[in-house]
Amino acid sequence: MLGRNRYGKSGIRLVRLVRHADRHDFKDVTVAVSFEGDFEAAHVLGDNAAVLPTDTMKNTVYAFARKLPLEEIEPFGLALAEHFLKENAVVARVTIELSERSWKRLSEHAFELPGQERRLAKVAGGRDGFSVTAGLADLMIAKTSRSGFAGFKRDPFTTLRETEDRILATALSAEWSYRKQDLPWGLLRRGVRQTLLEGFATHNSRSVQHTLYAMGEAVVESHEAVNEIRLTMPNKHHLLADLSPFGLENSNEVFVPTEEPYGLIEATIRRG
Amino acid sequence: MLGRNRYGKSGIRLVRLVRHADRHDFKDVTVAVSFEGDFEAAHVLGDNAAVLPTDTMKNTVYAFARKLPLEEIEPFGLALAEHFLKENAVVARVTIELSERSWKRLSEHAFELPGQERRLAKVAGGRDGFSVTAGLADLMIAKTSRSGFAGFKRDPFTTLRETEDRILATALSAEWSYRKQDLPWGLLRRGVRQTLLEGFATHNSRSVQHTLYAMGEAVVESHEAVNEIRLTMPNKHHLLADLSPFGLENSNEVFVPTEEPYGLIEATIRRG
Amino acid sequence: MLGRNRYGKSGIRLVRLVRHADRHDFKDVTVAVSFEGDFEAAHVLGDNAAVLPTDTMKNTVYAFARKLPLEEIEPFGLALAEHFLKENAVVARVTIELSERSWKRLSEHAFELPGQERRLAKVAGGRDGFSVTAGLADLMIAKTSRSGFAGFKRDPFTTLRETEDRILATALSAEWSYRKQDLPWGLLRRGVRQTLLEGFATHNSRSVQHTLYAMGEAVVESHEAVNEIRLTMPNKHHLLADLSPFGLENSNEVFVPTEEPYGLIEATIRRG
Amino acid sequence: MLGRNRYGKSGIRLVRLVRHADRHDFKDVTVAVSFEGDFEAAHVLGDNAAVLPTDTMKNTVYAFARKLPLEEIEPFGLALAEHFLKENAVVARVTIELSERSWKRLSEHAFELPGQERRLAKVAGGRDGFSVTAGLADLMIAKTSRSGFAGFKRDPFTTLRETEDRILATALSAEWSYRKQDLPWGLLRRGVRQTLLEGFATHNSRSVQHTLYAMGEAVVESHEAVNEIRLTMPNKHHLLADLSPFGLENSNEVFVPTEEPYGLIEATIRRG
Repeated sequence: MLGRNRYGKSGIRLVRLVRHADRHDFKDVTVAVSFEGDFEAAHVLGDNAAVLPTDTMKNTVYAFARKLPLEEIEPFGLALAEHFLKENAVVARVTIELSERSWKRLSEHAFELPGQERRLAKVAGGRDGFSVTAGLADLMIAKTSRSGFAGFKRDPFTTLRETEDRILATALSAEWSYRKQDLPWGLLRRGVRQTLLEGFATHNSRSVQHTLYAMGEAVVESHEAVNEIRLTMPNKHHLLADLSPFGLENSNEVFVPTEEPYGLIEATIRRG
Repeated sequence: MLGRNRYGKSGIRLVRLVRHADRHDFKDVTVAVSFEGDFEAAHVLGDNAAVLPTDTMKNTVYAFARKLPLEEIEPFGLALAEHFLKENAVVARVTIELSERSWKRLSEHAFELPGQERRLAKVAGGRDGFSVTAGLADLMIAKTSRSGFAGFKRDPFTTLRETEDRILATALSAEWSYRKQDLPWGLLRRGVRQTLLEGFATHNSRSVQHTLYAMGEAVVESHEAVNEIRLTMPNKHHLLADLSPFGLENSNEVFVPTEEPYGLIEATIRRG
Repeated sequence: MLGRNRYGKSGIRLVRLVRHADRHDFKDVTVAVSFEGDFEAAHVLGDNAAVLPTDTMKNTVYAFARKLPLEEIEPFGLALAEHFLKENAVVARVTIELSERSWKRLSEHAFELPGQERRLAKVAGGRDGFSVTAGLADLMIAKTSRSGFAGFKRDPFTTLRETEDRILATALSAEWSYRKQDLPWGLLRRGVRQTLLEGFATHNSRSVQHTLYAMGEAVVESHEAVNEIRLTMPNKHHLLADLSPFGLENSNEVFVPTEEPYGLIEATIRRG
Repeated sequence: MLGRNRYGKSGIRLVRLVRHADRHDFKDVTVAVSFEGDFEAAHVLGDNAAVLPTDTMKNTVYAFARKLPLEEIEPFGLALAEHFLKENAVVARVTIELSERSWKRLSEHAFELPGQERRLAKVAGGRDGFSVTAGLADLMIAKTSRSGFAGFKRDPFTTLRETEDRILATALSAEWSYRKQDLPWGLLRRGVRQTLLEGFATHNSRSVQHTLYAMGEAVVESHEAVNEIRLTMPNKHHLLADLSPFGLENSNEVFVPTEEPYGLIEATIRRG
């Protein structure tokens, strides 16, 4: 005998950009949709006539994210719940769960997600002395303007389209070495971090490599105590949600953030 | 001054099915590709002319997975390394890293990934007695035949295509309650687990719900000590890799396993 | 033939409290120590005469954390590296790696670790209407004063000592339901969060239960739109490092933060 | 008004060794204990008189693990539930949750935890050819006999006691390079893995370094295709539970497995 049952789609990852004239807003939300109702035929007989695919639930979330401003998650959840209940007669109960990560504004078009970041230091050496490196790991940053990728090499396996306007998001890790061992460590660390953030936010990016180099160059130029810096910038791709099947335009407003696969860009910038 | 640098694509998730007449083989591999070479113009000038997109690296991995049998990961890595070096004059050094998870065969077309699984028990109650439930969590299983999803409800947001042949993969969790408290616990647990695996492997699945119910029904029918069972089956989608841009057919052989979003199907089956 | 080798201790978790007259500072650092040198006899013959135990490395880190102010991680690493090299003739190279998480000050004696926190909302219901709950998850907070645990029940398995001065740290999760569905959601959410933080920071805590209740009561009293609130507060234990074998006092200054086991305290506070 | 509430201890990690004359059994269980009852005074007044510390719950679990055989988790949970209910008049409802990971026997005194393990390969190189390395990561193994650590260097921070009988547990990672590129890859991989497991299980270990070297030496000696092998063996410490406050002997039967801190031992063994 079939007892309590439900089905739905979880882990619907969503970034909504609101493009104001002078700035962007950046919302990062994960949604789960769940239905309960009379689904006995589906379970017992394999009759799917009343089963809305969970893939459709996902599509609906992206379409609604385009149609609504998504300033707060509560009314977004209410709109989804009402829609699903209205359109699915067999459904007795809908649950919409929303989870938001709060990005902090760095500039008009750049953002930081506080939290994963760690400060690093490494002291290594032997009888002839030590080297000291400082660093940071997993500083989550994104920019929503001044970032493109075009003019790249093409081969028969290339399907990527050129773009002059994409989200560039990364979990920045950096390690830099110092020329001396008696330094105002905290002051320098904050200074290098600030230079990295400014470089990221202001650069007219033609690629991750291009921005990474500009950030590293700025550190070496601005902080004479720094000998060299190694930057690691995974490219955390944000794919444009395809809303064309629903007659909706998506002018870089609704994105699917992805974890895998990711680009991985690394380079060392040394004092010349 | 630009020092050592590299770039590439990591986290390329890949499932390769080899469809023998009497059985399937199931290979689950994650690939990372990395290039080193003279990419100074890309870093310093933002000139991408020599930069093969990391998206192309990913496409190449899927195309090669179709063309090659992928029985062992070493020759697959060698083939990729040779291809990338030959086609990219500016590249001095290629690195291909491969990581494989070993699925164990359950039947001709069903597989188990050992490892995450845990055995569960819960004893709960008060002065009037205890209830005992047993369970298992995160039993990773997949079937590559006898699984379809068709005849479902459609609405304007539905784009999913019907299929009679898909991979059905899940991380099964189950909790069942017993009617008594003096039982051969270990024997029963192994019996229920076996019934669940057999039910999964042999069912002609029209949906996750359909298979989940059949599995739960078999447990209640085969094990009279079991009162009811609750099954949770996330649908860990395996998307067919689109190889048509490269003139390659993909007859359900190369898949992209995904973590998010995922379907989530739950139900309780009770003794009638 | 033995090639390059090293050994050490990783994952040495450390919280250092600096107790100023008017405020505390809270430093949260993870340390790894590694030695390289002539350890051939240990590998080939099983002769441990030159092998300083990794347990001793750990002890040394805690002892140094007591002796040094630990304001910045770089000089702390330098001091450890110099000590280990001086005291271990066979060691050719020492590496100290440090990773710090930056807690933000909430008050003189309370702190927040930004980053894991997520905002939650849940809309659930059917043809007769929806309920809306809002929430937050994994808000990491700690207080270093006004927290004790004494006068508790003892049985033959009780070894815990009473304390009037401990670190109380938790990953707060909260879910509250609203009485209406047309509300200034963002404003209310920020208000409830602020009330929770103030309640946590200012309460004279006799237990986690005691503080949890005070926090929930304050929310229901201060926000009439809130119907009830459920709080979940794992007790993330900070054990006092035992430095007595080294002749060092530890007046609640050096702690070992632990992940497992943890206390788990949950309650709902309803409008009366 | 206080609504539904509960408290307890979660994440109580436990390894129980059953020492038969000819073999050991290895049980790996995580326990959570939770109480519900009339705890209003604790919440509202901060009166802890009825509150059994969660630390005592933890102690009780370890003591019961010593007194009981712990062959199956269900009766262990029942015994705990009955004890707590009997001894705590204020408790109305007890919940014991148990989660077990199933280690597989390798030999009389050695075990493998299937599941995290991944097979690795790396192909790297340029115009002058490629190198191929194979490997495995996170192969969880433990041995409960023939493992000691004694005769080590002592300094003023050394408190570790010598032992001739401890659990040696690790998450083995290994990478080995081949001398040629046309090899029976799968066969060799299985052979190297088998040699590593045999070396681990049979070695009379005086330290992790000692066993690591013996394992690597065996691989180079047994597999002439292998040029060199690098082994990484974190020492996943299993601390003896201190049961002396409860008048119970613990002759290496009940252990607390720990995640942090951990020893980290690495070495390369090359063909001479």
